[in-house]
Amino acid sequence: MIVRPRPRLIELFFIVKGSIVLRIMPLLVFLAVLSAGIVSIYTFRPDWLPRFDGGPFALLGITLSIFLAFRNNACYERWWEARKIWGEFMLTARNLGRLSQILDKHAEGVSPDRRQLLELNIAYAHALLLQLRPGNQLPKIKSLLPESLVHTFIHSTNPPEVILRTMERILIDALRAGQIQPIQFNLLEELIQKLAQAQAACERIQNTPIPFGYTLLLHRTAYTFCFLMPFCFANTLGWATPFVTALAAYTLFGLDALGNELEEPFAPIANALPINALTDIIEIELREALGDEVLLALPLPKEFVLM
Amino acid sequence: MIVRPRPRLIELFFIVKGSIVLRIMPLLVFLAVLSAGIVSIYTFRPDWLPRFDGGPFALLGITLSIFLAFRNNACYERWWEARKIWGEFMLTARNLGRLSQILDKHAEGVSPDRRQLLELNIAYAHALLLQLRPGNQLPKIKSLLPESLVHTFIHSTNPPEVILRTMERILIDALRAGQIQPIQFNLLEELIQKLAQAQAACERIQNTPIPFGYTLLLHRTAYTFCFLMPFCFANTLGWATPFVTALAAYTLFGLDALGNELEEPFAPIANALPINALTDIIEIELREALGDEVLLALPLPKEFVLM
Amino acid sequence: MIVRPRPRLIELFFIVKGSIVLRIMPLLVFLAVLSAGIVSIYTFRPDWLPRFDGGPFALLGITLSIFLAFRNNACYERWWEARKIWGEFMLTARNLGRLSQILDKHAEGVSPDRRQLLELNIAYAHALLLQLRPGNQLPKIKSLLPESLVHTFIHSTNPPEVILRTMERILIDALRAGQIQPIQFNLLEELIQKLAQAQAACERIQNTPIPFGYTLLLHRTAYTFCFLMPFCFANTLGWATPFVTALAAYTLFGLDALGNELEEPFAPIANALPINALTDIIEIELREALGDEVLLALPLPKEFVLM
Amino acid sequence: MIVRPRPRLIELFFIVKGSIVLRIMPLLVFLAVLSAGIVSIYTFRPDWLPRFDGGPFALLGITLSIFLAFRNNACYERWWEARKIWGEFMLTARNLGRLSQILDKHAEGVSPDRRQLLELNIAYAHALLLQLRPGNQLPKIKSLLPESLVHTFIHSTNPPEVILRTMERILIDALRAGQIQPIQFNLLEELIQKLAQAQAACERIQNTPIPFGYTLLLHRTAYTFCFLMPFCFANTLGWATPFVTALAAYTLFGLDALGNELEEPFAPIANALPINALTDIIEIELREALGDEVLLALPLPKEFVLM
Amino acid sequence: MIVRPRPRLIELFFIVKGSIVLRIMPLLVFLAVLSAGIVSIYTFRPDWLPRFDGGPFALLGITLSIFLAFRNNACYERWWEARKIWGEFMLTARNLGRLSQILDKHAEGVSPDRRQLLELNIAYAHALLLQLRPGNQLPKIKSLLPESLVHTFIHSTNPPEVILRTMERILIDALRAGQIQPIQFNLLEELIQKLAQAQAACERIQNTPIPFGYTLLLHRTAYTFCFLMPFCFANTLGWATPFVTALAAYTLFGLDALGNELEEPFAPIANALPINALTDIIEIELREALGDEVLLALPLPKEFVLM
Repeated sequence: MIVRPRPRLIELFFIVKGSIVLRIMPLLVFLAVLSAGIVSIYTFRPDWLPRFDGGPFALLGITLSIFLAFRNNACYERWWEARKIWGEFMLTARNLGRLSQILDKHAEGVSPDRRQLLELNIAYAHALLLQLRPGNQLPKIKSLLPESLVHTFIHSTNPPEVILRTMERILIDALRAGQIQPIQFNLLEELIQKLAQAQAACERIQNTPIPFGYTLLLHRTAYTFCFLMPFCFANTLGWATPFVTALAAYTLFGLDALGNELEEPFAPIANALPINALTDIIEIELREALGDEVLLALPLPKEFVLM
Repeated sequence: MIVRPRPRLIELFFIVKGSIVLRIMPLLVFLAVLSAGIVSIYTFRPDWLPRFDGGPFALLGITLSIFLAFRNNACYERWWEARKIWGEFMLTARNLGRLSQILDKHAEGVSPDRRQLLELNIAYAHALLLQLRPGNQLPKIKSLLPESLVHTFIHSTNPPEVILRTMERILIDALRAGQIQPIQFNLLEELIQKLAQAQAACERIQNTPIPFGYTLLLHRTAYTFCFLMPFCFANTLGWATPFVTALAAYTLFGLDALGNELEEPFAPIANALPINALTDIIEIELREALGDEVLLALPLPKEFVLM
Repeated sequence: MIVRPRPRLIELFFIVKGSIVLRIMPLLVFLAVLSAGIVSIYTFRPDWLPRFDGGPFALLGITLSIFLAFRNNACYERWWEARKIWGEFMLTARNLGRLSQILDKHAEGVSPDRRQLLELNIAYAHALLLQLRPGNQLPKIKSLLPESLVHTFIHSTNPPEVILRTMERILIDALRAGQIQPIQFNLLEELIQKLAQAQAACERIQNTPIPFGYTLLLHRTAYTFCFLMPFCFANTLGWATPFVTALAAYTLFGLDALGNELEEPFAPIANALPINALTDIIEIELREALGDEVLLALPLPKEFVLM
Repeated sequence: MIVRPRPRLIELFFIVKGSIVLRIMPLLVFLAVLSAGIVSIYTFRPDWLPRFDGGPFALLGITLSIFLAFRNNACYERWWEARKIWGEFMLTARNLGRLSQILDKHAEGVSPDRRQLLELNIAYAHALLLQLRPGNQLPKIKSLLPESLVHTFIHSTNPPEVILRTMERILIDALRAGQIQPIQFNLLEELIQKLAQAQAACERIQNTPIPFGYTLLLHRTAYTFCFLMPFCFANTLGWATPFVTALAAYTLFGLDALGNELEEPFAPIANALPINALTDIIEIELREALGDEVLLALPLPKEFVLM
Repeated sequence: MIVRPRPRLIELFFIVKGSIVLRIMPLLVFLAVLSAGIVSIYTFRPDWLPRFDGGPFALLGITLSIFLAFRNNACYERWWEARKIWGEFMLTARNLGRLSQILDKHAEGVSPDRRQLLELNIAYAHALLLQLRPGNQLPKIKSLLPESLVHTFIHSTNPPEVILRTMERILIDALRAGQIQPIQFNLLEELIQKLAQAQAACERIQNTPIPFGYTLLLHRTAYTFCFLMPFCFANTLGWATPFVTALAAYTLFGLDALGNELEEPFAPIANALPINALTDIIEIELREALGDEVLLALPLPKEFVLM
């Protein structure tokens, strides 16, 4: 996620980070050159190319805009839903950190069960992160899991579920030992289910892109539209054509490229969600709930980007 | 569901799988030929056909775009809702696999009740799949059901419900036998109700298409619009008409055809949801929860398509 | 609800059922004749009528399209919400049929309480149908209610609620008799509340149309627009005017008329929801849950219409 | 809320009630006169005023339409949400009327606790109405409250909450007296919380209008647009300008005025929600639940308006 | 939040508060001067600058409008969601004030536990406010917290959570002391979790702006569009160009600036939510629930602005 103050007018045109302008620059240059070529022909060899009226073409442009807006909207909603899921996830971790005080027998000390439960929750957060944005999470997870679980974790088809299953077992044992009452077991169980829900919802977003047919259709139409633009507008815009074509292409492809980025809110890209940072915050807050010394620093953006 | 990396520019125009271009190709060819014919007449026999101005016509095109966008949006939301339902379904299966540990008396072994409950859950997933996308699920289901249930299952008006009713009975018996406490019964009962909810929601989407009147009205308008297009644009676009007409028709019919595909997210088509794969994953994860050896392989896309 | 396979191209233009074309046909004919008249005047008596440019008029058309789309969207969402409510209603009936097994003392036989509860649920479904789409439901309801309740039912301001109140009483009596435990009473009570919710939500949709001011404003603008169309387009479209005018009017009024139909999802019209069929299915499934012989046939569409 | 059958074509243009035409009539007349003046000048003193092309202006019109549609949508959603809240409110009252049977000791008679609880619920409905649409509700409320509560009610900063607090006390006392079991207390408590939720949600809608900046920006743009319209269109539309200008202004201002009305769904205006009627229905149904003679008549629309 | 009666026509153009006109005024003046310059050149030195047709440019304008509407919609939904969260927050405080009566042993007096719980709730509201819109809340919070908590509160990475953890402890102690029954503990626990939810949801909105790429792309396109406008329209609009350009720029930048304001619903700006006032109301209502003398006055808008 890009975190920076709103740019002033003059800065606006020189920001590159978070902009998609670099990615689509070759295309814009190509279109500008193409436009210039066509205008040259119209100007110096007017009979080499027929002239077209842009009217019917404008209709295609409006249609394209409407559908681009539709796709963009769908992508944005995926992205925002993903953020909501992680907000719920953090909330659940906090709730567990707070409610699990019920496992502590004495008002002061943290019971071993509670400690294990919350450390497993930290491990679960890292395991979910590992699934969504694979990185160097494994050593951390291993250090948090009981020895006997590590092997199962690594060989499971669904590693985070292994952690939840262990958390469940701790609760069931506490229930049977009479540490918690049956009705309080339900409260804690609901939190476990919410942890599982975060994973299921993230998987849904990660594994189910916008239907490929849309992407294909919109890309094809957008590219064809931009290649045709100079032919239709050179007639009326003259030497302004390269500039206007590049501007229109920048808007269309820019929105398209942004849609692509938002479609994958967990990918390791600048406009994605800062789930590494959120995982760290979960760890910090649960450590604080346990009264441990917190060794992790609060995550900060690097060069305006928080991952 | 089509699973493939985002195509590069050059690939973009040669991908056929997941594209609806083949299905509407005859129409596009017809329109291009029609356009060429009309342009010929305008060029060589200018007095055979009157000339029209495209202005009023463009208005119709914009109207059509707005309503196509509306329908597309409705179809996409059905598709995404269907995906959410299956996400919830998978989550419920996992929750049941985890929470049902409460039925195990000893920390290690799986109790017969729990085994039967989870195997019935697997059967339920296949039964739901059988209802939504009929295939060769029956042998698998039969192998998972107790002998006495098979006949009832086959002759019921609502076979999956038969399975849920049996799961309920297991829970009620466990409650009466004191295996689970009343309040824990409620937790398990909620999961049963969520399994039932997945079925009810899928049925709603499968049995209730977008109102037929919309489909009819939009198709009629779209077809008429495309047939009229060459008459209105030939005047100003000249020999570019066949190409522009085909491009506009590709966009309009393409979006329409995509809407049709998304309207039926359970149909056995390339852009539909991969519910066969999701059912397999449910089976694999529940088997793992039971500690069974997993024989099923994780489903993989074939030629970019995951069903 | 209209249930039919997607029509092929040639069929598309000859389907009448579910289309709103018949209803707006007189208007279309009138507009075509009006257009022809105006074109005649422009052609043969060019000085009888001033000529207008359609430009400003097109702006009005786009505005109108945007607002029609807005109203259509609102109507569609009402219709779909109504379908969701009935999906939830059916789910609740199934859940009650399943969970009420807890009232059965012996594993095999159906207890009298359970039988009465489910028969009241069937009666409730018919009573709700009677409220939403009045028909010949009364004899069926009477046959399902206990003798003493019939009079109260008929004279109540809210008949379905009378049935729910009786169901509640059965549950309270079972609770006091120790047949069910307090915590299981809550599960059953929640289902009763969900049955009540179905009624409240249906009432909301049935009794609260889209604000009348919208309907009025859009109808007025749409009619005026269509009457003005020939004057503005005759100039540029010539003898194609009657056809294009009728096509545009078909699209505008068609969408408007469809919106009207979807606004009332319970009305006895072809595009409405098949709530008669859904009620029958609820009855069939609850009878099956009771182990009764099912006498009702599964509802089938008649001439492509399922009511 | 305006309740009337859908008007026929000829009626459509003569309905005033529920239309916003009267309110914006002076403006429409002013615009028509202005247009006529401008056309006169163009016709008889062509060199007094420069001529403009409407093209760039149409762009502004489309932009305006898109943003008007956005605001209208937001207003409609507020209105519909308000209706949903009242639907939930009515449902909660019904649920309380039904579930509170648990407070009755004998199957027949209504216990004093239950009577007081439901009468307080009636008082709560009127108190909420008093807050949202102040009228002559106070005598009715006073007659329903216990003597000792009236003073507190009147001097509270949040009078409805005073009633809920008393209802809570009744439940807590019943719990302590062993009249209801702890788990059933929770069911009733949830209903109290839902009553409170209705108030909180209504307050939110009543106290938080659409941001003032939107209203300001849209009004300013819409007025300026309409005043400029005659200058831009007189050129091409000639003597039709006054009519087309008035029609366009009717659509724009009409939608704007409708948005204003829907923004305040509780205001005492024709297009607002019939919350007086809904309150009466709640009273009637709760009286019926208590077995009281119902003295209030079912509310009916007066001159097509139900308040 | 700006609270004022709807302005009359003549006022409309002179309101500054809540309008974004002052902020964008320099830009509008610049554009008007630029336009005037270009028109001068076209008029007096027609061969200095080439002339452009505005057609292709209008297409860009429509595209821009559609995407501006999309962004505005997203911002408005954030703002409205933030208001919903605070409505829920206030409801939860009321529910806690009401339900906590269960902690009072005697019908009249407020138990120390309940007093502490509600005072911590007041402190929590101010702590949340401190997080969202930092001001002079710290002395108030300190006065409400127990001495021993102040240090922990100030040094925590998540201060509001510290308060919730203490509230939880009070409840757990009450449960263990037998003051409340296990099942009632759950009711109160749910309210604590809802308080935590308010914080998590507010954090999500505050920390996750609309993706920066959107802001960048739209700003760039909007600025470029407005700078190009005079070149394209001067041709057809003549000396009206400065006015029309400024009007279009006012609409585009105005909507953009409004979107910016709504994007941050907790910022200390006029169009933001009145969360200071809502916090005060929570305090007043909880004091009233405790039977304390209320010293705080109900918050009123100052110069039409309620913060």
